[in-house]
Amino acid sequence: MIILGIDPGYAAIGYGIIEKKADKLTPLGYGVVKTGADESLPVRLAMIDEAVSGIIKKYRPDAVAVEELFFNTNVTTGIKVAQARGVILLCAVKECGHLFEYTPLQIKQALTGNGRAEKKQIQYMVRALLNLAEPVKPDDAADALAAAICHANTSEYMHRRVDK
Amino acid sequence: MIILGIDPGYAAIGYGIIEKKADKLTPLGYGVVKTGADESLPVRLAMIDEAVSGIIKKYRPDAVAVEELFFNTNVTTGIKVAQARGVILLCAVKECGHLFEYTPLQIKQALTGNGRAEKKQIQYMVRALLNLAEPVKPDDAADALAAAICHANTSEYMHRRVDK
Repeated sequence: MIILGIDPGYAAIGYGIIEKKADKLTPLGYGVVKTGADESLPVRLAMIDEAVSGIIKKYRPDAVAVEELFFNTNVTTGIKVAQARGVILLCAVKECGHLFEYTPLQIKQALTGNGRAEKKQIQYMVRALLNLAEPVKPDDAADALAAAICHANTSEYMHRRVDK
Repeated sequence: MIILGIDPGYAAIGYGIIEKKADKLTPLGYGVVKTGADESLPVRLAMIDEAVSGIIKKYRPDAVAVEELFFNTNVTTGIKVAQARGVILLCAVKECGHLFEYTPLQIKQALTGNGRAEKKQIQYMVRALLNLAEPVKPDDAADALAAAICHANTSEYMHRRVDK
Protein backbone atom coordinates (compact mmCIF):
# COMPACT_ATOMS: atom_id res chain seq x y z
CA MET A 1 0.00 0.00 0.00
CA ILE A 2 1.29 3.44 -0.95
CA ILE A 3 0.39 6.34 1.35
CA LEU A 4 0.82 10.05 0.72
CA GLY A 5 0.99 12.22 3.83
CA ILE A 6 0.43 15.97 3.59
CA ASP A 7 1.18 18.78 6.03
CA PRO A 8 -1.06 21.61 4.79
CA GLY A 9 0.06 25.21 4.39
CA TYR A 10 -0.12 28.00 1.83
CA ALA A 11 3.53 29.10 1.81
CA ALA A 12 5.00 25.61 2.29
CA ILE A 13 3.19 22.30 1.89
CA GLY A 14 5.02 19.24 3.18
CA TYR A 15 4.52 15.91 1.42
CA GLY A 16 5.85 12.43 2.03
CA ILE A 17 5.17 9.13 0.29
CA ILE A 18 5.74 5.77 1.94
CA GLU A 19 5.11 2.19 0.95
CA LYS A 20 3.83 -0.34 3.45
CA LYS A 21 4.64 -3.99 2.66
CA ALA A 22 3.79 -6.45 5.41
CA ASP A 23 4.92 -4.36 8.38
CA LYS A 24 7.84 -2.69 6.65
CA LEU A 25 7.65 0.99 5.78
CA THR A 26 9.79 2.37 2.92
CA PRO A 27 10.02 6.06 2.00
CA LEU A 28 9.44 6.65 -1.74
CA GLY A 29 9.90 10.41 -1.67
CA TYR A 30 9.34 13.55 0.35
CA GLY A 31 9.76 17.27 0.09
CA VAL A 32 8.10 20.65 0.31
CA VAL A 33 6.05 22.56 -2.24
CA LYS A 34 6.71 26.27 -1.88
CA THR A 35 4.61 29.10 -3.25
CA GLY A 36 6.15 32.51 -3.83
CA ALA A 37 5.39 35.18 -1.25
CA ASP A 38 5.11 37.73 -4.05
CA GLU A 39 2.23 35.87 -5.67
CA SER A 40 -1.44 36.51 -4.80
CA LEU A 41 -3.33 33.91 -2.77
CA PRO A 42 -5.40 32.65 -5.76
CA VAL A 43 -2.21 32.14 -7.80
CA ARG A 44 -0.65 30.32 -4.85
CA LEU A 45 -3.76 28.14 -4.58
CA ALA A 46 -3.42 27.28 -8.28
CA MET A 47 0.26 26.39 -7.71
CA ILE A 48 -0.73 24.13 -4.80
CA ASP A 49 -3.44 22.48 -6.91
CA GLU A 50 -0.98 21.77 -9.72
CA ALA A 51 1.80 20.51 -7.44
CA VAL A 52 -0.38 18.26 -5.26
CA SER A 53 -2.23 16.84 -8.28
CA GLY A 54 1.17 16.16 -9.87
CA ILE A 55 2.44 14.31 -6.80
CA ILE A 56 -0.72 12.16 -6.66
CA LYS A 57 -0.47 11.38 -10.39
CA LYS A 58 3.21 10.47 -10.04
CA TYR A 59 2.97 8.20 -6.99
CA ARG A 60 -0.62 6.92 -7.36
CA PRO A 61 -1.14 6.52 -3.58
CA ASP A 62 -3.77 4.13 -2.27
CA ALA A 63 -4.56 6.61 0.48
CA VAL A 64 -3.92 10.27 1.28
CA ALA A 65 -3.52 11.29 4.94
CA VAL A 66 -3.88 15.02 5.64
CA GLU A 67 -3.10 16.63 8.96
CA GLU A 68 -5.99 18.54 10.47
CA LEU A 69 -5.60 22.22 11.19
CA PHE A 70 -4.55 23.24 14.60
CA PHE A 71 -5.97 26.71 14.78
CA ASN A 72 -3.43 29.01 16.29
CA THR A 73 -3.95 32.54 17.52
CA ASN A 74 -3.16 34.20 14.17
CA VAL A 75 -6.56 34.34 12.46
CA THR A 76 -5.24 35.89 9.21
CA THR A 77 -2.69 33.11 8.73
CA GLY A 78 -5.25 30.53 9.86
CA ILE A 79 -7.73 31.61 7.16
CA LYS A 80 -5.03 31.44 4.46
CA VAL A 81 -3.91 27.98 5.58
CA ALA A 82 -7.54 26.82 5.71
CA GLN A 83 -8.14 28.09 2.16
CA ALA A 84 -5.04 26.20 0.98
CA ARG A 85 -6.15 23.09 2.86
CA GLY A 86 -9.48 23.22 1.02
CA VAL A 87 -7.59 23.05 -2.27
CA ILE A 88 -5.44 20.15 -1.00
CA LEU A 89 -8.51 18.18 0.13
CA LEU A 90 -10.13 18.82 -3.25
CA CYS A 91 -7.04 17.51 -5.09
CA ALA A 92 -6.94 14.43 -2.89
CA VAL A 93 -10.60 13.58 -3.31
CA LYS A 94 -10.53 14.22 -7.09
CA GLU A 95 -7.24 12.49 -7.88
CA CYS A 96 -7.13 9.70 -5.31
CA GLY A 97 -10.47 9.36 -3.56
CA HIS A 98 -9.17 7.66 -0.41
CA LEU A 99 -8.77 10.51 2.00
CA PHE A 100 -8.14 10.41 5.73
CA GLU A 101 -7.65 13.17 8.29
CA TYR A 102 -5.62 12.99 11.47
CA THR A 103 -5.22 15.56 14.21
CA PRO A 104 -1.69 16.56 15.31
CA LEU A 105 -2.44 14.74 18.57
CA GLN A 106 -3.35 11.50 16.77
CA ILE A 107 -0.17 11.68 14.68
CA LYS A 108 2.07 12.31 17.70
CA GLN A 109 0.32 9.52 19.58
CA ALA A 110 0.73 7.05 16.69
CA LEU A 111 4.46 7.79 16.30
CA THR A 112 5.62 8.21 19.88
CA GLY A 113 2.82 6.98 22.11
CA ASN A 114 2.60 10.51 23.46
CA GLY A 115 0.10 13.03 22.06
CA ARG A 116 2.19 15.86 23.45
CA ALA A 117 5.51 14.76 21.94
CA GLU A 118 7.90 17.48 20.82
CA LYS A 119 8.99 18.13 17.22
CA LYS A 120 12.40 16.52 17.71
CA GLN A 121 10.78 13.30 19.00
CA ILE A 122 8.64 13.15 15.86
CA GLN A 123 11.74 13.80 13.74
CA TYR A 124 13.57 11.00 15.55
CA MET A 125 10.73 8.49 15.12
CA VAL A 126 10.21 9.33 11.42
CA ARG A 127 13.90 8.68 10.81
CA ALA A 128 13.90 5.47 12.89
CA LEU A 129 10.67 4.02 11.47
CA LEU A 130 11.73 4.70 7.87
CA ASN A 131 15.29 3.56 8.52
CA LEU A 132 16.79 6.77 7.12
CA ALA A 133 20.46 7.65 7.37
CA GLU A 134 19.75 11.36 7.88
CA PRO A 135 17.00 13.27 9.67
CA VAL A 136 14.25 14.48 7.31
CA LYS A 137 14.38 18.20 6.61
CA PRO A 138 12.59 20.53 6.57
CA ASP A 139 10.05 20.00 9.36
CA ASP A 140 7.11 20.23 6.94
CA ALA A 141 8.33 17.14 5.04
CA ALA A 142 8.93 15.25 8.31
CA ASP A 143 5.40 16.18 9.48
CA ALA A 144 3.98 14.91 6.19
CA LEU A 145 5.84 11.59 6.51
CA ALA A 146 4.57 11.40 10.10
CA ALA A 147 0.97 11.73 8.84
CA ALA A 148 1.61 8.92 6.32
CA ILE A 149 3.19 6.70 9.01
CA CYS A 150 0.26 7.46 11.33
CA HIS A 151 -2.11 6.18 8.65
CA ALA A 152 0.03 3.08 8.02
CA ASN A 153 0.18 2.23 11.72
CA THR A 154 -3.40 3.01 12.63
CA SER A 155 -5.70 0.00 12.83
CA GLU A 156 -8.22 -0.22 10.01
CA TYR A 157 -11.16 0.26 12.35
CA MET A 158 -9.74 3.51 13.64
CA HIS A 159 -9.41 5.07 10.18
CA ARG A 160 -11.53 8.12 9.74
CA ARG A 161 -12.18 8.12 6.02
CA VAL A 162 -13.59 11.47 5.07
CA ASP A 163 -14.11 11.31 1.33
CA LYS A 164 -17.50 9.63 1.45
CA MET B 1 -19.15 43.10 -19.25
CA ILE B 2 -20.47 40.02 -17.42
CA ILE B 3 -19.70 39.76 -13.71
CA LEU B 4 -20.16 36.76 -11.43
CA GLY B 5 -20.50 37.55 -7.73
CA ILE B 6 -19.99 34.84 -5.12
CA ASP B 7 -20.90 34.71 -1.45
CA PRO B 8 -18.65 31.91 -0.14
CA GLY B 9 -19.80 29.15 2.20
CA TYR B 10 -19.57 25.40 2.51
CA ALA B 11 -23.23 24.54 3.16
CA ALA B 12 -24.66 27.24 0.88
CA ILE B 13 -22.78 29.25 -1.75
CA GLY B 14 -24.62 32.24 -3.19
CA TYR B 15 -23.99 33.22 -6.81
CA GLY B 16 -25.29 36.01 -8.99
CA ILE B 17 -24.47 37.00 -12.56
CA ILE B 18 -25.07 40.48 -13.94
CA GLU B 19 -24.35 42.18 -17.22
CA LYS B 20 -23.13 45.78 -17.32
CA LYS B 21 -23.82 47.66 -20.56
CA ALA B 22 -23.07 51.37 -20.46
CA ASP B 23 -24.36 52.08 -16.93
CA LYS B 24 -27.23 49.64 -17.04
CA LEU B 25 -27.08 46.48 -14.91
CA THR B 26 -29.11 43.43 -15.92
CA PRO B 27 -29.36 40.23 -13.86
CA LEU B 28 -28.63 37.12 -15.92
CA GLY B 29 -29.14 34.60 -13.16
CA TYR B 30 -28.72 33.96 -9.46
CA GLY B 31 -29.18 31.23 -6.93
CA VAL B 32 -27.60 29.12 -4.24
CA VAL B 33 -25.46 25.99 -4.50
CA LYS B 34 -26.21 23.71 -1.55
CA THR B 35 -24.10 20.82 -0.33
CA GLY B 36 -25.68 18.03 1.71
CA ALA B 37 -25.08 18.14 5.45
CA ASP B 38 -24.72 14.35 5.44
CA GLU B 39 -21.73 14.49 3.08
CA SER B 40 -18.12 14.75 4.28
CA LEU B 41 -16.28 18.03 3.84
CA PRO B 42 -14.07 16.75 0.96
CA VAL B 43 -17.16 15.55 -0.92
CA ARG B 44 -18.81 18.93 -0.30
CA LEU B 45 -15.67 20.65 -1.60
CA ALA B 46 -15.85 18.52 -4.76
CA MET B 47 -19.54 19.48 -5.16
CA ILE B 48 -18.62 23.18 -4.79
CA ASP B 49 -15.81 22.79 -7.33
CA GLU B 50 -18.13 21.17 -9.86
CA ALA B 51 -20.97 23.65 -9.35
CA VAL B 52 -18.86 26.82 -9.42
CA SER B 53 -16.85 25.61 -12.44
CA GLY B 54 -20.16 24.84 -14.16
CA ILE B 55 -21.53 28.33 -13.47
CA ILE B 56 -18.36 29.95 -14.83
CA LYS B 57 -18.43 27.74 -17.95
CA LYS B 58 -22.11 28.55 -18.51
CA TYR B 59 -21.96 32.34 -18.11
CA ARG B 60 -18.33 32.99 -19.13
CA PRO B 61 -17.95 36.04 -16.86
CA ASP B 62 -15.34 38.70 -17.61
CA ALA B 63 -14.72 39.02 -13.89
CA VAL B 64 -15.46 37.11 -10.69
CA ALA B 65 -16.04 39.09 -7.47
CA VAL B 66 -15.76 37.06 -4.27
CA GLU B 67 -16.71 38.39 -0.85
CA GLU B 68 -13.91 38.26 1.69
CA LEU B 69 -14.38 36.27 4.87
CA PHE B 70 -15.60 38.07 7.89
CA PHE B 71 -14.23 35.89 10.60
CA ASN B 72 -16.86 35.37 13.23
CA THR B 73 -16.48 33.87 16.65
CA ASN B 74 -17.12 30.27 15.56
CA VAL B 75 -13.66 28.99 14.62
CA THR B 76 -14.86 25.53 13.52
CA THR B 77 -17.36 27.00 11.05
CA GLY B 78 -14.79 29.63 10.02
CA ILE B 79 -12.23 26.96 9.07
CA LYS B 80 -14.82 25.05 7.03
CA VAL B 81 -15.93 28.20 5.20
CA ALA B 82 -12.29 29.17 4.57
CA GLN B 83 -11.58 25.70 3.11
CA ALA B 84 -14.59 26.07 0.81
CA ARG B 85 -13.52 29.59 -0.14
CA GLY B 86 -10.11 28.23 -1.17
CA VAL B 87 -11.85 25.89 -3.60
CA ILE B 88 -14.01 28.75 -4.93
CA LEU B 89 -10.94 30.97 -5.50
CA LEU B 90 -9.20 28.09 -7.27
CA CYS B 91 -12.19 27.57 -9.60
CA ALA B 92 -12.34 31.30 -10.36
CA VAL B 93 -8.63 31.62 -11.12
CA LYS B 94 -8.57 28.42 -13.22
CA GLU B 95 -11.79 28.96 -15.16
CA CYS B 96 -11.95 32.73 -15.46
CA GLY B 97 -8.70 34.32 -14.36
CA HIS B 98 -10.10 37.76 -13.53
CA LEU B 99 -10.63 37.58 -9.84
CA PHE B 100 -11.44 40.36 -7.39
CA GLU B 101 -12.08 40.35 -3.65
CA TYR B 102 -14.25 42.76 -1.71
CA THR B 103 -14.81 43.02 2.02
CA PRO B 104 -18.38 43.06 3.35
CA LEU B 105 -17.75 46.71 4.28
CA GLN B 106 -16.73 47.62 0.71
CA ILE B 107 -19.80 45.89 -0.70
CA LYS B 108 -22.17 47.63 1.71
CA GLN B 109 -20.46 50.94 1.03
CA ALA B 110 -20.72 50.50 -2.76
CA LEU B 111 -24.41 49.64 -2.65
CA THR B 112 -25.75 51.95 0.03
CA GLY B 113 -23.02 54.49 0.76
CA ASN B 114 -22.92 53.07 4.28
CA GLY B 115 -20.40 50.39 5.26
CA ARG B 116 -22.59 49.43 8.21
CA ALA B 117 -25.82 49.02 6.24
CA GLU B 118 -28.22 46.28 7.38
CA LYS B 119 -29.14 43.20 5.38
CA LYS B 120 -32.55 44.59 4.39
CA GLN B 121 -30.95 47.75 2.96
CA ILE B 122 -28.66 45.58 0.81
CA GLN B 123 -31.70 43.52 -0.27
CA TYR B 124 -33.53 46.74 -1.16
CA MET B 125 -30.66 48.18 -3.18
CA VAL B 126 -29.98 44.90 -5.05
CA ARG B 127 -33.64 44.83 -6.09
CA ALA B 128 -33.68 48.53 -7.03
CA LEU B 129 -30.36 48.55 -8.94
CA LEU B 130 -31.29 45.43 -10.93
CA ASN B 131 -34.87 46.62 -11.46
CA LEU B 132 -36.34 43.39 -10.13
CA ALA B 133 -40.04 42.90 -9.46
CA GLU B 134 -39.41 40.77 -6.38
CA PRO B 135 -36.76 40.82 -3.64
CA VAL B 136 -33.95 38.32 -4.23
CA LYS B 137 -34.11 35.26 -2.00
CA PRO B 138 -32.35 33.69 -0.24
CA ASP B 139 -29.92 36.14 1.36
CA ASP B 140 -26.87 34.28 0.00
CA ALA B 141 -27.96 34.95 -3.60
CA ALA B 142 -28.66 38.62 -2.78
CA ASP B 143 -25.20 38.92 -1.17
CA ALA B 144 -23.62 37.40 -4.28
CA LEU B 145 -25.45 39.86 -6.56
CA ALA B 146 -24.32 42.65 -4.21
CA ALA B 147 -20.68 41.57 -4.70
CA ALA B 148 -21.17 41.62 -8.49
CA ILE B 149 -22.83 45.08 -8.35
CA CYS B 150 -20.01 46.31 -6.10
CA HIS B 151 -17.51 45.27 -8.76
CA ALA B 152 -19.57 46.87 -11.54
CA ASN B 153 -19.87 50.14 -9.66
CA THR B 154 -16.34 50.36 -8.31
CA SER B 155 -14.03 52.61 -10.32
CA GLU B 156 -11.39 50.76 -12.30
CA TYR B 157 -8.56 52.21 -10.26
CA MET B 158 -10.08 50.90 -7.03
CA HIS B 159 -10.27 47.30 -8.22
CA ARG B 160 -8.18 44.93 -6.22
CA ARG B 161 -7.35 42.23 -8.72
CA VAL B 162 -5.96 39.26 -6.88
CA ASP B 163 -5.26 36.66 -9.52
CA LYS B 164 -1.85 37.92 -10.55
